[in-house]
Amino acid sequence: MVKRTAKGSPQAPRRTDGLSRELIIQAATDLLDSGGESALTLRALTLRLHTGYGAIYHHVADKSDLLAAATDDAITRVLAGVVIDADPREALRSVAVGLFDAIDAHPWVGAELSREPWRTAMLEFYESIGRLLYALAVPGRARFDAAGALVNYVLGVAGQNAANARRRAASDTDRAALLDTVAAQWAQLNPSQYPFVHEAATQLRDHDDRDQFLAGVDIFLAGIATLR
Amino acid sequence: MVKRTAKGSPQAPRRTDGLSRELIIQAATDLLDSGGESALTLRALTLRLHTGYGAIYHHVADKSDLLAAATDDAITRVLAGVVIDADPREALRSVAVGLFDAIDAHPWVGAELSREPWRTAMLEFYESIGRLLYALAVPGRARFDAAGALVNYVLGVAGQNAANARRRAASDTDRAALLDTVAAQWAQLNPSQYPFVHEAATQLRDHDDRDQFLAGVDIFLAGIATLR
Repeated sequence: MVKRTAKGSPQAPRRTDGLSRELIIQAATDLLDSGGESALTLRALTLRLHTGYGAIYHHVADKSDLLAAATDDAITRVLAGVVIDADPREALRSVAVGLFDAIDAHPWVGAELSREPWRTAMLEFYESIGRLLYALAVPGRARFDAAGALVNYVLGVAGQNAANARRRAASDTDRAALLDTVAAQWAQLNPSQYPFVHEAATQLRDHDDRDQFLAGVDIFLAGIATLR
Repeated sequence: MVKRTAKGSPQAPRRTDGLSRELIIQAATDLLDSGGESALTLRALTLRLHTGYGAIYHHVADKSDLLAAATDDAITRVLAGVVIDADPREALRSVAVGLFDAIDAHPWVGAELSREPWRTAMLEFYESIGRLLYALAVPGRARFDAAGALVNYVLGVAGQNAANARRRAASDTDRAALLDTVAAQWAQLNPSQYPFVHEAATQLRDHDDRDQFLAGVDIFLAGIATLR
């Protein structure tokens, strides 16, 4: 006889293999990626993992513990992909782009990081950036400022891009169509009154957010090179 | 006899002097500053301005029209305060800090700008930045990237700071107490494993968000100077 829940719907068989914290975090990441923070519920996890609330609570405290663990996991994967023995400037670029891409792929990571930028997983991140700034001979106080500014730039831009992508998805607006509309408005401005914006219309239509982010990182790195 | 509303409470006398769009935008700004976006309701405006819904709808279309107009008004005030005939690097710094301070004073401006960074009032902003980049001899395509990166840095960092301030206000957490806690954790790390973060503990405790933002702008401007 099939077991039934209180509502009378058939219940999936309980899993008998071991449930680990890693498995739960992976399932939480999948839910967050597909539906955002609101999709991460204990109920959705029990359904996905074919288990009960008690088994999950055995491994994680609550939703915010899960969100933190999934974020830490994503950051750890970014850092694992960075080749630190490369040229320090290349390595800084790689760390910055890794965090940008992680937030682009997982917008909830950006939201969680901006809520709690001092979290433990970020320590490794700050330490990597700080060591690369030592390698670039950036002195004392300037090192702290440069590290802070670089992290703020990455979190700020990546967070904005992720929020824009979500908004476009929600309103069903195409990025290309939106940029076309704005670029057309810019192109119609009087070039003697708005020389820069008029000229920028074409570049606005064709620009790639990740390329522009990278151009910003390169400007930043060129500025950092002047601090030694 | 005092007029009474349907609920029986005494009604303030209707204003008899002229109601202008400027007055409505000023009242909307006050509501947004004191209570955030949720405080801006048509009802709150009628109470504040001692007028009726019809009089307000005569001047503005709806809440999003009002929010846009109040944002444009705040940006226009920032630009009015910038002395453009100064050294172009000083002027760029002044434009960036002006926008940072405006978002710090009015967090809803940051939210509105990140929702719609291409809005008309920002045209003047982009044009100012673009002209200063011409003055700094930054060439063609690099000009577009530099302007975009600078605006993204300002909006990203200012938006994060404003969101953090709101969150601290909501949770009644003191910024200094939070930084003290994190700095104490950093100071306890093993300096041979975390040389940078361990050293940065003191600077973290004492840092000023606006000073660090400015240090970032200066790194950016030093990088932009290498583009000519």
